[in-house]
Amino acid sequence: MITSESNAQIKELVKLQKSARERKKKKCFLVEGSRLLEEAFLEEKLKKFYLSETLSEHGGEWKKKFEKEVPYEVVSDSVFKVVSDTVTPQGILGVVQMPEYDPEKLFQEKKKRFLLLDDIRDPGNLGTIMRTAEGAGMSAVFLSYGSVDLFNPKVVRSTMGSIFRVPFCYVEDLSGLVEKLKKYVRVYGCVMEGTLRYDEPVYKNGAGIVIGNEANGISREVRKHLSETVRIPMAGKLESLNASVAASILMYEMARGDF
Amino acid sequence: MITSESNAQIKELVKLQKSARERKKKKCFLVEGSRLLEEAFLEEKLKKFYLSETLSEHGGEWKKKFEKEVPYEVVSDSVFKVVSDTVTPQGILGVVQMPEYDPEKLFQEKKKRFLLLDDIRDPGNLGTIMRTAEGAGMSAVFLSYGSVDLFNPKVVRSTMGSIFRVPFCYVEDLSGLVEKLKKYVRVYGCVMEGTLRYDEPVYKNGAGIVIGNEANGISREVRKHLSETVRIPMAGKLESLNASVAASILMYEMARGDF
Repeated sequence: MITSESNAQIKELVKLQKSARERKKKKCFLVEGSRLLEEAFLEEKLKKFYLSETLSEHGGEWKKKFEKEVPYEVVSDSVFKVVSDTVTPQGILGVVQMPEYDPEKLFQEKKKRFLLLDDIRDPGNLGTIMRTAEGAGMSAVFLSYGSVDLFNPKVVRSTMGSIFRVPFCYVEDLSGLVEKLKKYVRVYGCVMEGTLRYDEPVYKNGAGIVIGNEANGISREVRKHLSETVRIPMAGKLESLNASVAASILMYEMARGDF
Repeated sequence: MITSESNAQIKELVKLQKSARERKKKKCFLVEGSRLLEEAFLEEKLKKFYLSETLSEHGGEWKKKFEKEVPYEVVSDSVFKVVSDTVTPQGILGVVQMPEYDPEKLFQEKKKRFLLLDDIRDPGNLGTIMRTAEGAGMSAVFLSYGSVDLFNPKVVRSTMGSIFRVPFCYVEDLSGLVEKLKKYVRVYGCVMEGTLRYDEPVYKNGAGIVIGNEANGISREVRKHLSETVRIPMAGKLESLNASVAASILMYEMARGDF
């Protein structure tokens, strides 16, 4: 049992919890709680897991489930608190390999429904967007490098497991991606003064939708490359909808007729 | 200028910031930032405002705007930090009278589009829901007593001013409200196994939609009183959508054809 905070593994876990750079370097991230761990396990991405002393004594089921195939360590409760990102830790934490997807392969996906996020910054918004993307059956989500890190513990939690089920890809040049995508589908940007109402385009043969930054919307550079802009009309005096709400309304509009 | 944290006004502001009970007792809540203050002012709900020393010296425009009609005080920057709920305060904070609406009058509203929230607990969700409710042109939002306090500073901020523009009412007995509402419109509950797809009901002559608690959905008692249940279909392995996303999709479904 690991009982010291200065244990090398514990130090590494704390780094993975706190630093996006470290996660990127190691191509790993952490997930907490049995449900997310199970998702990672099913996707064969769970590399190692850590149990708190209390859970290892009382919650034997998880141990039995993963221990034959995945290495694990027991950690004293006080040390577990150090590596956990939550206030009341469940007592189970996994080191998970980052999923990697090839954009060119994603373009070939049958339904061709793509969401592009241009510098989404709020962790809660990104988590909610990934969750809705699964529900609406999106083919893939592309994120600009300026977007919040999907492997941030708060985002991971709020995806409710969708992080393992919705293909995604960070791209350095979102404008370039829009250009590539336009060989397959029309790419619409959601903006306040969009030329089309959001329910006017025909999405059924696929489409790309770009959602912009919470404060500044879609960047000027990306706008230049859009096929068209769409608007979600608003009553009242509102200037905009929440980014995850706008994304969700558009994704479900694309899914209309699926169900 | 107020320079002491133990000043009676400052103590009262801190109470209003932290305690839902105090807000209820005084029928007041606090808003921060010039935009929200202006909304409150336009609605004639701004009772008093407080400026940080720095803002009162440099941001004279706000002072000029409100000072003739609304009493104000200048507060030293360090004391202002004590009363502010934000990490980097804008330096302007207002005491605002709670809007009050009569449910019976709200029922008479022309479009008759009502959202009912059954124990929504997450402040961010409630703020986002109020914001979308304005955008979708809802007639009113009814909240069960178990829902999070709309006057919680985090909720107030995330409504983006909709708190002043969307009529709302907390109700002790949500089932009773559903019964009353059914004299005017059909009331649908959004549940996983809903009998109708969310786009099947005809909403154009008005409707009520009930959104349940984030973890437990709509309470058993309220369910008994619904006219019908609706579902938002989901691809993948998702168990549910985020409550504010589900509410938003339904509200925009009701607004379809408005714009």
